[in-house]
Amino acid sequence: MAGNSFGTLFKLISFGESHGEALGGIIDGCPAGIKLDFQAIQNEMTRRKPGQSAIVTQRKEDDEVQFLSGIFEGKTTGMPIGFTVLNTNEKSGDYSHIKDVYRPSHADYVYEKKYGIRDYRGGGRSSARETVSRVVAGAIAKQILPQIKINAFVSSVGEIFIDKPYQDLDFSKIESNAVRCPDENTAKKMEDFIKEIRKEGDSVGGTITCVLQNVPVGLGEPVFDKLHAELGKAMLSINAVKGFEYGSGFCGAKMKGSEHNDLYNSDGTTKTNLSGGIQGGISNGMDIYFRVAFKPVATIMQKQETINKDGNLVEMQGKGRHDPCVVPRAVPIVEAMAALVLADFYLINKTQK
Amino acid sequence: MAGNSFGTLFKLISFGESHGEALGGIIDGCPAGIKLDFQAIQNEMTRRKPGQSAIVTQRKEDDEVQFLSGIFEGKTTGMPIGFTVLNTNEKSGDYSHIKDVYRPSHADYVYEKKYGIRDYRGGGRSSARETVSRVVAGAIAKQILPQIKINAFVSSVGEIFIDKPYQDLDFSKIESNAVRCPDENTAKKMEDFIKEIRKEGDSVGGTITCVLQNVPVGLGEPVFDKLHAELGKAMLSINAVKGFEYGSGFCGAKMKGSEHNDLYNSDGTTKTNLSGGIQGGISNGMDIYFRVAFKPVATIMQKQETINKDGNLVEMQGKGRHDPCVVPRAVPIVEAMAALVLADFYLINKTQK
Amino acid sequence: MAGNSFGTLFKLISFGESHGEALGGIIDGCPAGIKLDFQAIQNEMTRRKPGQSAIVTQRKEDDEVQFLSGIFEGKTTGMPIGFTVLNTNEKSGDYSHIKDVYRPSHADYVYEKKYGIRDYRGGGRSSARETVSRVVAGAIAKQILPQIKINAFVSSVGEIFIDKPYQDLDFSKIESNAVRCPDENTAKKMEDFIKEIRKEGDSVGGTITCVLQNVPVGLGEPVFDKLHAELGKAMLSINAVKGFEYGSGFCGAKMKGSEHNDLYNSDGTTKTNLSGGIQGGISNGMDIYFRVAFKPVATIMQKQETINKDGNLVEMQGKGRHDPCVVPRAVPIVEAMAALVLADFYLINKTQK
Amino acid sequence: MAGNSFGTLFKLISFGESHGEALGGIIDGCPAGIKLDFQAIQNEMTRRKPGQSAIVTQRKEDDEVQFLSGIFEGKTTGMPIGFTVLNTNEKSGDYSHIKDVYRPSHADYVYEKKYGIRDYRGGGRSSARETVSRVVAGAIAKQILPQIKINAFVSSVGEIFIDKPYQDLDFSKIESNAVRCPDENTAKKMEDFIKEIRKEGDSVGGTITCVLQNVPVGLGEPVFDKLHAELGKAMLSINAVKGFEYGSGFCGAKMKGSEHNDLYNSDGTTKTNLSGGIQGGISNGMDIYFRVAFKPVATIMQKQETINKDGNLVEMQGKGRHDPCVVPRAVPIVEAMAALVLADFYLINKTQK
Repeated sequence: MAGNSFGTLFKLISFGESHGEALGGIIDGCPAGIKLDFQAIQNEMTRRKPGQSAIVTQRKEDDEVQFLSGIFEGKTTGMPIGFTVLNTNEKSGDYSHIKDVYRPSHADYVYEKKYGIRDYRGGGRSSARETVSRVVAGAIAKQILPQIKINAFVSSVGEIFIDKPYQDLDFSKIESNAVRCPDENTAKKMEDFIKEIRKEGDSVGGTITCVLQNVPVGLGEPVFDKLHAELGKAMLSINAVKGFEYGSGFCGAKMKGSEHNDLYNSDGTTKTNLSGGIQGGISNGMDIYFRVAFKPVATIMQKQETINKDGNLVEMQGKGRHDPCVVPRAVPIVEAMAALVLADFYLINKTQK
Repeated sequence: MAGNSFGTLFKLISFGESHGEALGGIIDGCPAGIKLDFQAIQNEMTRRKPGQSAIVTQRKEDDEVQFLSGIFEGKTTGMPIGFTVLNTNEKSGDYSHIKDVYRPSHADYVYEKKYGIRDYRGGGRSSARETVSRVVAGAIAKQILPQIKINAFVSSVGEIFIDKPYQDLDFSKIESNAVRCPDENTAKKMEDFIKEIRKEGDSVGGTITCVLQNVPVGLGEPVFDKLHAELGKAMLSINAVKGFEYGSGFCGAKMKGSEHNDLYNSDGTTKTNLSGGIQGGISNGMDIYFRVAFKPVATIMQKQETINKDGNLVEMQGKGRHDPCVVPRAVPIVEAMAALVLADFYLINKTQK
Repeated sequence: MAGNSFGTLFKLISFGESHGEALGGIIDGCPAGIKLDFQAIQNEMTRRKPGQSAIVTQRKEDDEVQFLSGIFEGKTTGMPIGFTVLNTNEKSGDYSHIKDVYRPSHADYVYEKKYGIRDYRGGGRSSARETVSRVVAGAIAKQILPQIKINAFVSSVGEIFIDKPYQDLDFSKIESNAVRCPDENTAKKMEDFIKEIRKEGDSVGGTITCVLQNVPVGLGEPVFDKLHAELGKAMLSINAVKGFEYGSGFCGAKMKGSEHNDLYNSDGTTKTNLSGGIQGGISNGMDIYFRVAFKPVATIMQKQETINKDGNLVEMQGKGRHDPCVVPRAVPIVEAMAALVLADFYLINKTQK
Repeated sequence: MAGNSFGTLFKLISFGESHGEALGGIIDGCPAGIKLDFQAIQNEMTRRKPGQSAIVTQRKEDDEVQFLSGIFEGKTTGMPIGFTVLNTNEKSGDYSHIKDVYRPSHADYVYEKKYGIRDYRGGGRSSARETVSRVVAGAIAKQILPQIKINAFVSSVGEIFIDKPYQDLDFSKIESNAVRCPDENTAKKMEDFIKEIRKEGDSVGGTITCVLQNVPVGLGEPVFDKLHAELGKAMLSINAVKGFEYGSGFCGAKMKGSEHNDLYNSDGTTKTNLSGGIQGGISNGMDIYFRVAFKPVATIMQKQETINKDGNLVEMQGKGRHDPCVVPRAVPIVEAMAALVLADFYLINKTQK
């Protein structure tokens, strides 16, 4: 189990390196008869792709998905959906300087030790370019869950954060700015800060908040495959993620039970929602919300000391076109992974009573 | 996939409800020829069991594990290890008052809606008593990983926290107090606070920190099954957990790349360890450390308003013997789940080059 | 993946050795709300158990199943169903003579080489006693498939076989004789032959035919998990099985397409059924029928030469109480495995359009 | 679990329809550092491809595999190996006549009923063209098992069969004739017969025998995942297969234990090998041999009555270029599936003691 598949019934298996021929995957278990909205899929690809704005990497990639199977006359057939995204813009020359060098806080060293071999071009499989397959699959997963609304947004960049509960935000404004922060004032501050960081040749971390609405009661499994455990794994599997919390999260660990318990209304909804829409691992019909922490990108344009294969200390400096802050481009990835988790539990739930 | 199994090669499948005949499980994939230390297994059971001290639930349970298969003349045979832990002390009468009531922030309501039926005695499968099977399997997992050291401890209760890095703590003191906090002064404060909370009939949350040492380079998979993603899922699957972070965690999201990158020494170790011992999802040989947030227990001894099956508002008050703070007893559970994750990746790693 | 689980959504994980404390298993994924018929389960256990008649082993085992979880007030709850069957009649003394000896055509040698250790008492995990768990799970699987009829019967013993198509047999007579052959004349011949074989201290092989009726159209998956591929694996996983064929089977390999094709009636049924109720791996609504070949039991009461651990040739003779012919007792096992396959595909099929 | 993946640690996930853009797959879990012999892979593709000789279909397909990932500088990297095989020669016009018709003994009807939609072009996913992905993966699996020899050959066509044990055959002659039968006289008869059948516009079935040599002791799992159970499933998952037997097979069901038992030599080999190289589901180091039955191809060039979507009886006649007998082209597919099974168990076996 080499860890390239995600999900049980609605399953994505992905392949591809940053600078190989193509990335892609297979979506296995998509129900038959779904009329696909291809524009919606391409929109998600466009949201993820580099070069969209002044604050993200200036690499140009078209990121067009080509579907190879499983779709007939615009509808899913129940057969596996194979797809590829060609690497049209790779510049392998850009990366020869890292062939024998282990970049700090990158995966170079561990790949070399684990596998005895490493595709050093652009990070190979460890590149965040791998997430392109997740976005394709997530965009299809969303289409089998039409009633559920999935909205992610940037809630902090460095020390700058939105100081409002998500209920006070207008999600329709998420795409109105380059940072994908629905609060305009905060977005402006974040954008300015990222530009400053880029000038310094540095990078900065941030957090993404995601809200899942209209999730039916009953998704998730009681013990190991709790809904929040799968969401957590899904998010932690995204490059650069360092933490996950849902509902009251780490703050909840400071509270008393009498403060934290969500009392019921007579219709089964709750007056508060510190639980974050999940009880005992199963959705309870309230909003599900969670927060994901991203570290600053390891590639920076400043000189750093590191080691090469022979263990000699060498100086290196990032080249190429990297994001000074990943969180804006990670927003559609977070949504895609949430959609994959929900689609899987949605199908499993059909078989349980 | 009803979510009662954990792991791929070293796999635990568990069963059992709080007040049924027995809990138990099957460990499938344990390598043959391991001479088991049964005392060590029972010790972990004893660490988890209720009634150990003044600050945990006063229920008495012997929690003796009985092994039914897979062991011959004291050694594992490579066959599945079946085991049971009898429920000797259940008092079903204690729970009749919740038969038709949905307790706030419990799983009663979602079980009823998802399955159309619910074993209401003591929470049934949603009870934390389920974790007894995890502790058995984790104790065996530890024995196939002899060189790895796994130490978890309580790092905060409510607002009280250890204000030192884990490197300054003496792990041999974890078991020296009822809270399982290796810093004696902090432990004392936590213990006093928990006693106070109990008097109020309330409960309080907390965090556990876990440190994995001597982990070989190369455990974990590059994409979906990153080492920290599986650790995160493992922890989030424990009852009452609301958050997980590893290495720099949520703090890392505030940092710059120039601060966060871990520079190498010439032997491949790093000068700092904000990465938390994992790069690109794969262990790098440095200490792995992570933190887990637990909410306050939902069962409190104060009156609360809730609803019954008919949607009528009713008043209820917790009965029985519950923990005012789960984190002390959750320490061995966190360790057990970490051991399960490591054992699985340890076996997978044998097949990859 | 140590191979002790079967199924994807309706899953059995089993444990236990012939002479350990107990055998048992966990059924994970059984839908909630099924009112179980416990008498029907015990009946299947009784059909499988030794000592039923003059032509099977005279060992006495009660084979009572104890359910430990997943059932509340007589109904399934959607939680894992743990169960055990105690080994009440084991006589470990009977087996000391084989401790250091590799019995011909048994698994002793390969277990020793593969695992470096072997529970030699009664064959340990390789004993057909392991199938007791399959029968429990199969009996529950049948109860979630109420409309489907599953009938297996002995179709040959040695050279004696039923020379009629299954359509001419009365399945209600299967249990009317000790051989479980619905054709009375043939049954009598088989029974006499088995008695003779037993007197010789020998054993004999046979075949079982199984017919699945009222299977809805649509069970099975197109490619690797074809319905007949899973049925084949299920049957081949039963001890002593050497072959599997369905529909026209090996005879079909001699035929022409113009003879073999099943022409349609206007309602979608077919005029002939050489396909055996499955097209492209998916049930087509016609009867599914298949045949399973069992070798003669390896334990015989005659002297045989074999080797011991040191590679020395030694003479041995079977002791204990063994079946001269396994097929009568294997009938309920074949049915149980068929039920497990159908239940799994039945649940999967709910998620596919 | 839509059934498009095969294997646990060495895993193939496949996609593609007969007349879609491309077929292909992902090989997940291939160990790192294997220097691939690409010519050997292409050779297997060529063995499987149509149009090779006068007795197989005259469709021309290049069947060139393109690898998209997981390989760097000629070696596997441990990352998933994505690959595609383009459909360059499809002629969708050829198939419009079957759009609304259910061909006898094809999967048209069951796909329509199961999924409510069907890609009718050339059988879509149910076409044997799907096996191209199996051959690619199998050719790579062979390369991680260098010491094992895998030889399949046609052992019967219709009533014509090789009347010698496999030990008397020269496997180097398998590729010397169009039928892939190593016995030259029999091959000639088979070839003549197939030509005759083709003239009649008919088709004929046959069997393939496969011999696995130099398999180390210890592959396979004791209970559900017995080596022969997985081989059986693998073979039964190939289009048109109706039966599987190994070792003594169906003949073994007629024998006595005293005839069937394989007595040991002092080195652990056996004097006879009716067991077929497997004891208790685990390889014992002797030759593994098995036989696979293929039905006659359902598409024939004769007029047949069938039904259309509306249930009306219509007359139809096969068009296009079909094999009158599949077994010659199925030889490399049988070998590929055997290689996949062995590679998986080979990796699993590394983790068991």
